[in-house]
Amino acid sequence: MASIGVDIGGTKVLGVLLEESTVVRRVKLATPSQPADLAKSVENVVGELGGADSVGVGIAGLVQFPEGVFAWGPHVAGTRLPLRDQLEELLDVPIVVDSDANTAAYAEMTIGNGRGYSNMLLVTLGTGIGGAIVIGGRLYRGDSFAGEWGHMLYQPNGRQCACGKQGCWETVASGPALAALATAFVSENPSGSLSHLLSDTAITGKAVTQAADAGDEVARGLVTQVGADFGRGLCNLIAIFDPEVVVVGGGLGSIGESILGPARRVAADALHGAAHRMLPPILVAGLGPDAGAIGAGLMAQEVAENGIESV
Amino acid sequence: MASIGVDIGGTKVLGVLLEESTVVRRVKLATPSQPADLAKSVENVVGELGGADSVGVGIAGLVQFPEGVFAWGPHVAGTRLPLRDQLEELLDVPIVVDSDANTAAYAEMTIGNGRGYSNMLLVTLGTGIGGAIVIGGRLYRGDSFAGEWGHMLYQPNGRQCACGKQGCWETVASGPALAALATAFVSENPSGSLSHLLSDTAITGKAVTQAADAGDEVARGLVTQVGADFGRGLCNLIAIFDPEVVVVGGGLGSIGESILGPARRVAADALHGAAHRMLPPILVAGLGPDAGAIGAGLMAQEVAENGIESV
Repeated sequence: MASIGVDIGGTKVLGVLLEESTVVRRVKLATPSQPADLAKSVENVVGELGGADSVGVGIAGLVQFPEGVFAWGPHVAGTRLPLRDQLEELLDVPIVVDSDANTAAYAEMTIGNGRGYSNMLLVTLGTGIGGAIVIGGRLYRGDSFAGEWGHMLYQPNGRQCACGKQGCWETVASGPALAALATAFVSENPSGSLSHLLSDTAITGKAVTQAADAGDEVARGLVTQVGADFGRGLCNLIAIFDPEVVVVGGGLGSIGESILGPARRVAADALHGAAHRMLPPILVAGLGPDAGAIGAGLMAQEVAENGIESV
Repeated sequence: MASIGVDIGGTKVLGVLLEESTVVRRVKLATPSQPADLAKSVENVVGELGGADSVGVGIAGLVQFPEGVFAWGPHVAGTRLPLRDQLEELLDVPIVVDSDANTAAYAEMTIGNGRGYSNMLLVTLGTGIGGAIVIGGRLYRGDSFAGEWGHMLYQPNGRQCACGKQGCWETVASGPALAALATAFVSENPSGSLSHLLSDTAITGKAVTQAADAGDEVARGLVTQVGADFGRGLCNLIAIFDPEVVVVGGGLGSIGESILGPARRVAADALHGAAHRMLPPILVAGLGPDAGAIGAGLMAQEVAENGIESV
């Protein structure tokens, strides 16, 4: 049964056409700046992919579930947007709308690196930090909005966050946080090797990780620093949930060991009662940054077959 | 069916004899300093209460469940102590051993202020901060050690914590944190009203809350400050779990509105997406600081009737 999964992020709308659980086509558009255009852009993605028997959408932010109302999010414009209702009018197939972190977790628990675990945390590390909770093999959403640990207080009076508050965890562990560290370093060391490497490009998290991959020591140090702050926050989550596994996705998280290595070292050292327990495995997402879109498609298949209560 | 519930805390071992869910007798001993004496002190409590058909124990720290092994805790001496096995040899009745926060949550969800809610957080505020998680009407323990949010990083490079790390949430929100604030104030203002009020007593959290109750403005301010830091941490937990209700127990938490009022105000303001959602109710524990002992007894009754899988 073919389904389409769509991941609406802060900058792009990614759609995948799935046959069973295999991606057979992808399409990417820019995220519209007007909330009123969001449903239309999903319709466009579905049209470009040729349609399907069911459509799932993951969106970055707070989503009322199962109603599929996008309540609000710091990275996508819109409030109280009845996205599921709008899409049901535009597309004559079963629709499910959830947070992008929940759809990513659904993919990882079904066909990714969370498969076989009963209790899993999915942490997305990209423009911000998102999260989803699997307990007893099922997504746990609380009253809808669970998993927003990117906005744990991490640095009292710290950097301004996109959410409007200060010092949230994602202000020190995210792509923009890595870019901010590099920007500060370059402005203080304008003749250094990193300045040279980044001189022809906008300083983004991705540019810094590429400089690190190219062997630049300063860039490596900055990636390690972000990995360490990521790990210190993971340590909080592990103390809170004592999960069997932590799976890390998102654009920055999916680069793997250069972030996860320092994260694991810090988490192992800082974990409450570390001498008397084991750190659970901290794994990279098996489906990489496409997990959100793939999971939305898998969730749509399940909803079409067994109803919304089944996911 | 009569059961006995025992709560082993950092300073005292409290036992209650329950008939159904009513406390008919109480006894309190000092917590032994030697780990080898813990099981014996539970036996003494059981003896003083006259015995029962089942015995439950809640202990402050990391408990392997259902094995009932006390792995470690910052406030009670002992590591890898097979408390359930030891008690089964000493007492010829069904035994259950869990963390004190889990037993307190069991009491609150069964006969306290968490009754009727499916997803609840129980937060104990006393010598430290403990926690328990109820999801779908059942205790969620993770791999055994979930709920240790008292040791979330809250103040990077902050005060030394009993756990060995620095800046944990409980270093700014607990009885000892309140006492430390008062001690610092008194030493800077030796002729002030608070110094006068506290001159004949050890400066403890309880003494400061009593001074606040007696109307001392400085003491009230310090209680409000601890309540605010407590609320800022609760806000993290609410963003993470989006629970239906938060129930606050423990010695300091059970004093009620003077702590919970400022906590609610801070949490309502700082909650992620606060303009687009409601803060869940933050309630005082219906069973007060006895919840841990009462819940241990209730859990023992349930285990005796329906086996360890039922709790």
